[in-house]
Formats: sequence, C-alpha cells, structure tokens
Amino acid sequence: MSLKTICSPSSIAIVGVSHNKKKVGHLVAKNILEQGFKGALYFVNPSGETILGKRTYKNLQSIKKKVDLAICAVPADIVLSYLDKLQCIHCKNIVILSAGFKEGSSPENVTREEKLQKLIAKHRLTVLGPNCLGFVNTSKKINATFLQHALPKGNISIISQSGALGSAFVDYIATKSHLGISHFISLGNKSVIDESDALAYLATDPSTHVIGMYLEDIARSTLFAKLLKELSPKKPVVILKGGKTKQGSEAALSHTGSLAGDDATVEALITQSYAIRADSYAEFETLLKLLSYGAAPKNENILVLSNAGGMGVLLTDDIIQNKLRLVTISQKTKNELKSHMNPHKSISIHNPIDLLGDASAFDYEQAVAATEKETNIGAVIVLLTPQANTQIMKTARVLYHYQKRIHYPLLPVFMGKASVSRAHRFFEQKGMPSFRYFASFSRALYKLVDYKKRCGLRSSHHSNFFSIQTTTHQPDIHTVLSQYSGESFLNQYDSARVIAWSGISVSPLYHATTKQDLARIVRREGFPLVAKIASDKITHKTEVHGVITQITTLEELQNAYHTFTSITSKKAGCYVQKQHNGYELLVGAKRDKEHGVVLLLGVGGVYAELFKQSLQVLYPCSLDMFAHLLKTSFFSRYLMPFRGLPAINITSLHETMMKLGSILEQHKEIDSIDINPLMMRGTECVAVDARVILAKR
Amino acid sequence: MSLKTICSPSSIAIVGVSHNKKKVGHLVAKNILEQGFKGALYFVNPSGETILGKRTYKNLQSIKKKVDLAICAVPADIVLSYLDKLQCIHCKNIVILSAGFKEGSSPENVTREEKLQKLIAKHRLTVLGPNCLGFVNTSKKINATFLQHALPKGNISIISQSGALGSAFVDYIATKSHLGISHFISLGNKSVIDESDALAYLATDPSTHVIGMYLEDIARSTLFAKLLKELSPKKPVVILKGGKTKQGSEAALSHTGSLAGDDATVEALITQSYAIRADSYAEFETLLKLLSYGAAPKNENILVLSNAGGMGVLLTDDIIQNKLRLVTISQKTKNELKSHMNPHKSISIHNPIDLLGDASAFDYEQAVAATEKETNIGAVIVLLTPQANTQIMKTARVLYHYQKRIHYPLLPVFMGKASVSRAHRFFEQKGMPSFRYFASFSRALYKLVDYKKRCGLRSSHHSNFFSIQTTTHQPDIHTVLSQYSGESFLNQYDSARVIAWSGISVSPLYHATTKQDLARIVRREGFPLVAKIASDKITHKTEVHGVITQITTLEELQNAYHTFTSITSKKAGCYVQKQHNGYELLVGAKRDKEHGVVLLLGVGGVYAELFKQSLQVLYPCSLDMFAHLLKTSFFSRYLMPFRGLPAINITSLHETMMKLGSILEQHKEIDSIDINPLMMRGTECVAVDARVILAKR
Repeated sequence: MSLKTICSPSSIAIVGVSHNKKKVGHLVAKNILEQGFKGALYFVNPSGETILGKRTYKNLQSIKKKVDLAICAVPADIVLSYLDKLQCIHCKNIVILSAGFKEGSSPENVTREEKLQKLIAKHRLTVLGPNCLGFVNTSKKINATFLQHALPKGNISIISQSGALGSAFVDYIATKSHLGISHFISLGNKSVIDESDALAYLATDPSTHVIGMYLEDIARSTLFAKLLKELSPKKPVVILKGGKTKQGSEAALSHTGSLAGDDATVEALITQSYAIRADSYAEFETLLKLLSYGAAPKNENILVLSNAGGMGVLLTDDIIQNKLRLVTISQKTKNELKSHMNPHKSISIHNPIDLLGDASAFDYEQAVAATEKETNIGAVIVLLTPQANTQIMKTARVLYHYQKRIHYPLLPVFMGKASVSRAHRFFEQKGMPSFRYFASFSRALYKLVDYKKRCGLRSSHHSNFFSIQTTTHQPDIHTVLSQYSGESFLNQYDSARVIAWSGISVSPLYHATTKQDLARIVRREGFPLVAKIASDKITHKTEVHGVITQITTLEELQNAYHTFTSITSKKAGCYVQKQHNGYELLVGAKRDKEHGVVLLLGVGGVYAELFKQSLQVLYPCSLDMFAHLLKTSFFSRYLMPFRGLPAINITSLHETMMKLGSILEQHKEIDSIDINPLMMRGTECVAVDARVILAKR
Repeated sequence: MSLKTICSPSSIAIVGVSHNKKKVGHLVAKNILEQGFKGALYFVNPSGETILGKRTYKNLQSIKKKVDLAICAVPADIVLSYLDKLQCIHCKNIVILSAGFKEGSSPENVTREEKLQKLIAKHRLTVLGPNCLGFVNTSKKINATFLQHALPKGNISIISQSGALGSAFVDYIATKSHLGISHFISLGNKSVIDESDALAYLATDPSTHVIGMYLEDIARSTLFAKLLKELSPKKPVVILKGGKTKQGSEAALSHTGSLAGDDATVEALITQSYAIRADSYAEFETLLKLLSYGAAPKNENILVLSNAGGMGVLLTDDIIQNKLRLVTISQKTKNELKSHMNPHKSISIHNPIDLLGDASAFDYEQAVAATEKETNIGAVIVLLTPQANTQIMKTARVLYHYQKRIHYPLLPVFMGKASVSRAHRFFEQKGMPSFRYFASFSRALYKLVDYKKRCGLRSSHHSNFFSIQTTTHQPDIHTVLSQYSGESFLNQYDSARVIAWSGISVSPLYHATTKQDLARIVRREGFPLVAKIASDKITHKTEVHGVITQITTLEELQNAYHTFTSITSKKAGCYVQKQHNGYELLVGAKRDKEHGVVLLLGVGGVYAELFKQSLQVLYPCSLDMFAHLLKTSFFSRYLMPFRGLPAINITSLHETMMKLGSILEQHKEIDSIDINPLMMRGTECVAVDARVILAKR
C-alpha cells in the first residue's frame, strides 16, 4: 500500500474535532492549522459548531466533496461506524488514532478488530494505525498528530511502532536548532500500512536522508529485507528493536499485538540488509544525530584530544572495547606538534593527546592542525572538561573553523553542565554534532564504521555469490523423503545421504552388523575410528554414552560393537565412522515462518549447548558478507591457528552452509537440518553427523 | 599518613598567590576566601603587594607563626625550593598543585621527582599531590582547589586520581539543588597521600555517607582491600577504574605515572571488598546519585509503570539483560487495580503496567497505591513521556506523596527535554533521584542489589571460611623444591606431588618404563586410560599429539607406549593415568606483586584458550563469597546438570582452590600453579595434570 496520498493529501477531513482542548480531536486539528497546511480542510463534529475558528460539518455526507484523507479521532466503536460512510466523500485513505483493536485481548477488542478487517477489505481502504499517533510531513506542512511540539524541518524521518517512543524522539529534536525531521510516521497496530510501506514511500522522498525506525515485530520480513537492502546504503536506516528478551517480547505482545521473532534472526536481517541496529534508545539518538549531520567517521582509526587525562583514559578503554582503533601518530607530526607547543608544557603526545588541564584554544588548534597531515584518521574526538581558564567558546570556534576544511569529522565532547551550554548551542547552529558525555558514543561510532564496511561489500555481491547447482543425484532426495511420509525425522544414515547429495562432503558412515563388517571397515578406513549406537531414538548420543571415540585397535572396535548391540539388539549392529581431527562446529539450517531459510553456526560437539555461542545468517548470503559476519563475531577466534589446528577456511565453510541452505530452499518437506559436528581443518570440511527434521503436515 | 591536618587545618599559607586572575594561585586564594574559611590565612607573594584585599608575605620566614598547611601554586622547580623553607613555619603538611614530576618521562621530570622524594623524606612531609587539583572540605568551609564552582554541602565524598574527572563530577553536583559533597580529594601523583590514606580518613568523617573514587592504579593493594572491606558495607564505595584495556592503561601511564594492574584482578578486589564498580562515568554518576539519596532498590524485583508502551518494552529488555527481575503481580492486586481504573481503558496489567498514552496522575496513583500491598517489590520505575494531556507535575507530586510512606524507592524516569524540567527540579528539591533516560540505569540498579547481597555475606565470613591446615607431608615440599633450585618449573610428577600434599586429590600418574608396567597399571586402574608423552619440554601436550585418550584395551595402551617412546626414548617410558569423566576446568594460583595470591578459574582442556573465559578470585575467599562470584559469572552454567554430568559442587571446588592458594601462601619459592584439567563431577574433584612454576631468583 502506498503512503503517498496519506502523507501528501490535497484535502483532509478530521472526524471528531472537539472544543475540549484536552481531546485528541482538538489537538490534531490545532496542529494541522498551526503547521500551516495549505490544502482543503474539513472539520467534522455532530454539533456543527465553529471550532478553532472554522466551521464544522455535522457529518461526512454534508462535505459533498471528494476528500483525499480522513483522520479519525473518535472512540473505537464510532470509528467503525464511520468507515462505511467514507465512500460519500470518495475517500480510501484513513488515519485511525483510536486504540481498542488488536492491541488488547479483551472480547470487545477482538470483535472490533474483526469488524475493522472486514470493513478494510470491503472498501479497499489504506489505513495508518489504528492505535497510532498519526504522521508528520514537514515539506507539506502537515502535522497530523497530537504531539505537543511543532516540528522543525530536517533530513531525518522516523517510523515508529510506538507512538510514545516516537514522541520522545521528536521532543528531543524539537529542542535542537539544527536537527529536524522530514517525516514522522506512527505505525500503531499496522492493520494495513506497515514498516515496508513506510520504507518504500520514504525511499522516494527527497527530503529524507536518514531513517530511524522503532519496531516491535517485523511483518513481511522478506519484502522488508529487500527494501532495506536497496535503501539503507543510500539513506542509512537505524533500527531500534523492542522485545530482545523473552520478557520484553511479552510486553510488546500486549503493547501492539505483535510477537517479536527470535532476536538473533532479526540481528542477521538488519546486518545483512546494510541497516544499522541501535541497542538502546540513547544509541538510537546518537546514531541519528551523527548521520543527520553527516558526521560518521571515515574509518575505525580514532584520534583523541583531551584536556582531562582521566577522561582520556576512560574514553580510550571505551574505544578499544568497542573494536575501534587509536591512530598511531607519526614521529614527524609528533615533532611538529612539540615544536609549536609551549616548551614548559610536558604534554603527552601519544594518542590520546593529553593537552593538560590548562589547555588553551591555541593548544587545541595546534593539535588539530598538526594532525591534519596524518593520512589515516577516521575521526577526532575532542574532549574538553571545564577547568580553571579553559577557553570553552574560543576552542569551539577553532574546531568549527577547522571542520570546514577537514574531511573527517571533529567530534566535540564538551563535558559538564552550565559552563559548556553555550558551546553546545554554537555547535548546533553550525551543524556540528556535539556531546556532553561519551557514554554509548564509541559503540555508535563503531556501528557507523561497520555500516560503511558492509555497504562496501555490496558491489561484490553478485560476482562472488556462491551459486547453488542442483546436484547430480537430486531426484533421489524425493524418493528418500517420500519414504518418511508421516514421520518427523530421517535416520542418521538417510540424513547423511540427503546432505551428501547437496554436495557437502560427509564422512562415510558404515553400518556394521557382523564381525566381518568390522574388519572390512578397518581395512578400508584404518584408525582412529568412532563407533556409534545404531538407534534412531537417541539424539544426543554422548549423553547416553552412545559414542565411543578414539578406537585404535580391532579388539576395541569389537568391544564397542558388543556394548552397543547388547543395549539394542544383535540385528541392529552399530555404526562405524572414521574419527576426524579439527575444529568441531555445529551448522544448521531452519525454516523460519517470517524470515525464510535461516542458517546457524555454533560451537560443535559436547560443548555446543554449554557455550551457547551462535551466529545466525539469513540464506542466501554472499561470501564477503559471510566473511564480515564471521570476523565480527565470536567465531573470529576460529580464524586463526590454535593448538596445531590450522585456521578454518571461510570459503569452504560458506560453501557448505549455502549448500545446506539450498536443500531447505528446494525441499519444502524439510523443516530443519543440523550437522553436528562439522569437522573443519583448513579447507577440509567434513560432516560427521547430521539430522534432517521434516516439516509437520 | 593522615589527611586529618591537611583537611581540617586551623591555619593555611598559600604560596604563589597572584594578581593575575587566570593563575592558579589567584583562583585557589579566591576559592578559600569565598567558601568562608574561618582560620588564619597567609598569602605569600615575593612582591608583598595586597592581593584580593589581603596583605601578602614576601616569604615564609616573614609569617613568623606556626602554620598547619601550606598550599603550593608555583611552578615545579620553585616548589622544590620552598620545601626546605617550610620548617620556618613548622609546617609538615603541604598540598602541591603543580605538575612537572613523575607524570612525565622527560629528564627534567625524573630529576625533579628524585629531588621531591628526597625532600619529603628529609622533612617527613605529608604531601597531597603533586599534579593535583587540591581538596575541598565543605564542613570546614575550605575549598582549596582552583575549580570554577562553589560546592554545595552534602553526603558524597570524592577521591580522584584525575583532577579533570573529579571536576566534571563536581560541575555536575554544583547544578543540583539537593546533591552535595562533604570532601573532594584530588590525589594527583600520590607521592605521599594515596587512596588508602584518603579512605582511612573518610571512614572517620561523619558527613561522608557515600564515597566515589576514580583510580588509575591501586597502591598498597592489600591495605586498600582491608580498608574497603571495613568501610564499604557502612559507607558504600563506588569505584571507577581507568585503564581497563591495554591501551587505556598506557594512556594512564603517561597520565599519572602509574601502571594499571590486570583488570580482572582489580574486579576481584572490588567485588570481594564489598565495593561497587562503575563501568563508565555515566554509571558512576548514577550510582552515587542513587546512594546519596538512599534510593538503592530493596531487592532485584522491579515493577515498571509506564505511559509509553515502546519505552516499557525497551526498559524490560534492559532489566532482564541486566539480571534483574520483573515482579509478578498477584491476581488480587490486578483485580483491585482494574476495579479502580476507568473501565474504558484497556490497560495491560502485566509488569510493565502500561497505563497508555493518556495516563493521568490519577492512573499513576492507582497503580502505585494498588501495588503497595505486593510483598516483594525492590523498586518501582515510573516511566513517563510527555504526550497529549500528560499531567507531568501532578504525577510528580503523587509520586512524592507516596514515596514518603513507601519503604521501597519510586524511581521516576521522566523522559524528554523542556517539558519535564520542572518535574525534575521538583524531585531534586524533595530529595528523590529522577532520571531523563534509562540508559545505564538497570545496570546501576543491579549493581546496588549485588552490593547488598555481597554485604549480606559478611556475617558468615568467619564461620564458613575454609581453614587451611598444613597437611601431613608438608615438610616434603621443601625437600622437593630444594632439588629444583635454579630451575624454572617442576616436572609433571613432582608438580602432582606438591598439590597432593596440600590435600587436593590427584589422579595417580604412573610412569611406565616396561611392558610389564603397562599390564600392572591396567590391573590396578582398569579402563579407560590416558597415555601421555614423558617429556618435560612439552607443556601443551595436545598440540604435539602427546596425549592419547580413551584407551580401552591393553593392545592400544602398548601402541601408545611405542608411539611415545619412539619420539622420546625407550628409557623415558610414558605416563599413564585413569581417564576421568566430568566437567573439565582449569584452576590456577599466581602470585601478584600488588594483590598477593590470586586464584583463577577457567574452562579446562583443549578449549581453555579458545574460549578465554575466566574468573579471578583473591585468596583467601569465604565459601559464601566464592559461591556468589561463581553464580554471577560465566561459570554459573556449570552449576546445573548438563548432558548426563551432575552440577559441580561449589564447596568441593572452593576447598580445592583455597588449598591451591595456601600452597602459594606458604611457599614463597613458588610463583604459580596451574591444574589443567581439574575434572569435576558433582563433589568429585580430581586434578589430572598440574604444573608448578618457580619464582625467579
């Protein structure tokens, strides 16, 4: 559904305009008048009185014109009665502010929601809301919300599933002289218009340069990811997601009637779609502010100037803990800087450059000027705390002067309260983002650097995407799967066959049912070997001591055989496999209702569950993006040699995971596949055990 | 050294008072006058002119009185010349503001530092600084700093190794109407007075109820820990430590000439001494504010009231991620609350209680009043965002009214800028801590709950501290160690003997040098067995394939024997040991120059280094504190059964670790001991391999 007509109407009817200054209907009408909307405006109130200096219509029929947009500010039950009447003004677009629909679980809410859906289908309505705050479009001078503030025009657009959160952000913006917004779109219950519609619309809005979204669930995830991928590299999209935890997700459920998905999947979606995730509301504000001002760092190399040693130390800790780096200053620059400074000052020209407590604006200037010749600075953080004789305003002006010609951002962190307020106002007026604290600051900078890196991977997207071919024995998969009709999973033997057909190398699994079999296996594979109990009922084999490893003699193999067949039966025999050496990984693929095929990488073997470390990747994923995800995750530690094991080869692992994903993509009968362990040793990549779970019918 | 005379002098001489309003000497003199110091005050300036309306003395000799305290505001070289002259005013106490000593590495600084130390020793001086901001004692109306603000009197005392950081905090305090300070002590280079002196002094100060410290290194760590342990349970001490990372630590080195210790050891010291660690400057402020107002939560059960669904969701995520809990509201309270609310409001009475965007002060009041009957609330966070018709001030007054009679804190988080400012001022005046954001808020609350829990463990400290007895064969350790004189570590066999003597159970290690030995071992121990290469040169045995596990037949054991002796020599033989089943842990003890004996718990076996998860514990540590540390760390996952393994028994592990610590305590020749792995299965706790490293002579 397009938001175009809703956000840029030539005519608006407001249903429920009221005399009562506290009523939503009054506030919306007042806001629309005050923001200066130029189109036709109709107020509807059954009394027909004059409100806010304008005549009101007793009902929609009496307007007798075609109207582009209706805004409903009446209680939920009355809303429903109006939807049937919209046709008399030929209106298909409506904003419903009222609550009382699917966000509550009471019988009344459920009934109203059903009626609403029927009326929407019947009249083919485009609805924003219900249970929303409305929208703002500053270019068209429309403020169709009941917010308390007028909104300055600017380049940020906000899409919010929570009205209150959006209003807190907008309250923040309203106190800034330089930041401003293009659109504010309150999604509410998302009965028709959802985040994808809003993104698609903002993609075409020339005033929007940066987008901030607060979401509690993601509808139409595949479409949303597609839109994000196209849009975010051009207009960065910052996403704050509520419901990370189970409890948060439950709170969201009662809030807008949505159920948040698995957070790791959401993380994968945001990362792979080149969007930026904010982890807190404060970070959301910081990221949008930096992006709105165009002050994202050029790269991860940060220079810190400071007149406060202790703060410099804390900021350094913060920078390093957030995976940024400190620029190493060349000796030449150090010498030059030293030569310009007061010789009595024993300043420390490491990075951070500690200009000492009595630093003058001149000292700051020398430091900024001298380091300008350094080639690899991503951003300069300029820490200042008010001390005796600190030249606050003069330093601010020096920074602005240099920012005009320096291509990397100078980021002032002027700490304290009253004494630095004027400087902050100055920076705002000049369009430089300034900060009073550095809490959540390094993390935000890291995220912007990471965003740029990910966007840089796009061009290679098509060239190195591993193309999945249907493998030679493909048709056999169907034959195998058809034998399992009505069952819930394949046995180990058939599971191995299915993944082998996709091209993943699988360690041969021998099913020994006689002593002669054992001898034959030893002749073919040598030692060491592993024996496994042959029972389909046991999933975690180590738990029931169903696996014997490190078998290096035939006698031992025979012992193992006896042990297992005495538990199961002579007829069952046992499985035998070569023992592989390498990193033990868990690799999985599952089908997610919302997000399609999701791949999972985890610590393999016995430790898999104990360490609970995993990485989710949405299928498909390019090699470059996969490499980036791996390097920035827990699994980066597998990318170096360890205790005689060579580093794992990213290309091999990527190939294996994409092949696994392709099986799910092609065979809807399969719900999920786990390979545990996948043994990796350099480029060698062998599946040792696998389990194919079938979809429920 | 006592700070008593420095902080409460009856007479002060200021050396270097100046006409120039920008000079430190002028600012300090002005601050002392303005704060209203009642004692004798002497200004020293070679000109002898009147400054700030007071006569000045040309030199110290001309004062001709005994003076309690001298404050030096002259350049470093001149400071030194004054130290010899202090005796003419019989003064032993001095505050040196000037920089130019050990904080820099230039030859001038080094020479000056040497001279300073000699003069301090010669005259037995008590020095605060150098390179510091001075001190404040509001009870005595002394502001001996060059800070820009006058400081309100209150119950917080600040000890800071960074002047600028202290001044930023004080700048923050100065804008608050209800918060205030008792003392501000700027430590600077800590030439004489250090953090332990400052703590000892503040312990006796009746005006100090809460202490905030910024430290970059910890001098006299054992004394410091002792003082903290006594003080922090009575007057909570919040510690912000700079130099967590290697780079931050390097920045600190050039800052105050200190080298920060291993951060995990510092963490252990703070935790075991009942202090509270702040992880950022923002958290430092939040913790001090909550403690100063006496608004720490009663327990971890939090109730959230909100008029902003989205914010409630984000705060819930935050609460859960920070290991706090949401109170479960009883059905009775829910019913009561529902009966008092407007029946048209479909509010959600989960926790968080979403009062909806149009929540009135009455709605907030009903929620606070109804939940008052709940028995287990630790604190209530009251979220409010300004929306249409939000009754900001009225709600604030309701909260204050209830806070007066409710024993758990009501914590208002009123978000936004301009529109909530008045409410925040109201809360301040009424002595309630209020917040504009909830960033770092849940974490601070968790830390206060954790602090209370740790303090609660104190009473049991003596009753259950595991007493280490010298074991039966104690004298033999000396015999063994003496054989290793000049070497750097004990072989595996003797290492095992040393730890066995302390009472730790060790899996017998057999040294097989013949085939007959192998058969004998099998008869005694059965299977499975492990064979290890017998070479002292190999530390990480798995890396060179020096360990063969899961041996279950004699033939296999013989194969292993041949493999190893062909690498080493027939004569060397090989080690054989029973294979144990259980959690693999790494347990270590090391001698730390600053902190004494430090114990280490890590993930054992091959994965030890890969996962880099460890917990440090200072020796000795009571069972209760150890249990608390374990439960709040990564290792909590070992405290439940996993894949057929029973949970590890905390008492057994504690006993083993304390025995290990006692070895280092009693044998100074030993530098460190590692047991890897220590196999744990319920209460069973067996050391499989150990390494004793000797101290360098």
